[in-house]
Amino acid sequence: MKKVTLLLVGVATLAGVVVFTAATAPHVTAQEAAPIFVTEIPDGYREWRFISVAHEEGNLNSFASILGNDIAIKAYREGKLPFPDGAIIAALHYKFVPSTENNKAFGRDQSFVAGAPTNVQFMVKDSKKYTATGGWGFGHFNSDGKPVDDAFMKTCFPCHQKIKERDLVFTRYAP
Amino acid sequence: MKKVTLLLVGVATLAGVVVFTAATAPHVTAQEAAPIFVTEIPDGYREWRFISVAHEEGNLNSFASILGNDIAIKAYREGKLPFPDGAIIAALHYKFVPSTENNKAFGRDQSFVAGAPTNVQFMVKDSKKYTATGGWGFGHFNSDGKPVDDAFMKTCFPCHQKIKERDLVFTRYAP
Repeated sequence: MKKVTLLLVGVATLAGVVVFTAATAPHVTAQEAAPIFVTEIPDGYREWRFISVAHEEGNLNSFASILGNDIAIKAYREGKLPFPDGAIIAALHYKFVPSTENNKAFGRDQSFVAGAPTNVQFMVKDSKKYTATGGWGFGHFNSDGKPVDDAFMKTCFPCHQKIKERDLVFTRYAP
Repeated sequence: MKKVTLLLVGVATLAGVVVFTAATAPHVTAQEAAPIFVTEIPDGYREWRFISVAHEEGNLNSFASILGNDIAIKAYREGKLPFPDGAIIAALHYKFVPSTENNKAFGRDQSFVAGAPTNVQFMVKDSKKYTATGGWGFGHFNSDGKPVDDAFMKTCFPCHQKIKERDLVFTRYAP
């Protein structure tokens, strides 16, 4: 009876250790963990405040407005790095198109505006949930509201890692 | 004595008429009135919501983010024209500059971002105050916060008049 009790205690302890390691995963490094992506569009992002603008030439030919929720804006303005949990940055992408009516008013071809929306990308800071990708969850939703596949999403983190000195965030705050 | 009293009443009546016409100016048409410009930066414009982005090539070489106060955003979203009194639209202008760090991450030259701020322009809707310029007050403040001279400001309205069908507002709302 004494042996059986000891054995049971042993199993229970082992089970406890297993549960503990699964919950906190101290032995899993960022390299080993599977990345988790943002699968739902954060609420109310179109009401957020302005961070900056960007344009990509070439195949992307995109016009972006980058917005931030309150936590992200506060961190930007205070110059705090890393961004705290809860910070969310949204990049609203549109086609980069010439504006016929603006050019007509100016009397020369010089004006480009936002065309049809193409996608919205998000970076959601949650240092526990997104440990495998530097504490950031990446999301990309096409104009139909659907997220893109994991193969595409796996390209986000390796590229953003190139800007480690700014906590993986390329966009600077425009005053 | 009677003559003097009548004369005084006559002067007072005339003065009253003069004060009345100066306040409501019913005989002054938009063409005759002197344009009035926006001389103070509207409070809190950097917190406003996003309308759209724009880029001008050439001498301007500018990158703009266009923001709106609550009244402007509501009118835009409801597609209401003309814009109601109280609507304010802000155009935050920056230099349009290539991003060395983004290009390095992408592995090719394709990325442009907001450089130094250059100016902020405003359109303030007040159909009584700005009757002479289509109900809109125009403002332009350089990055030092100072308004530009009237000679420059007089060029705003004639150009914006070219887009009368959208109540003088060039920027369309980006969804």
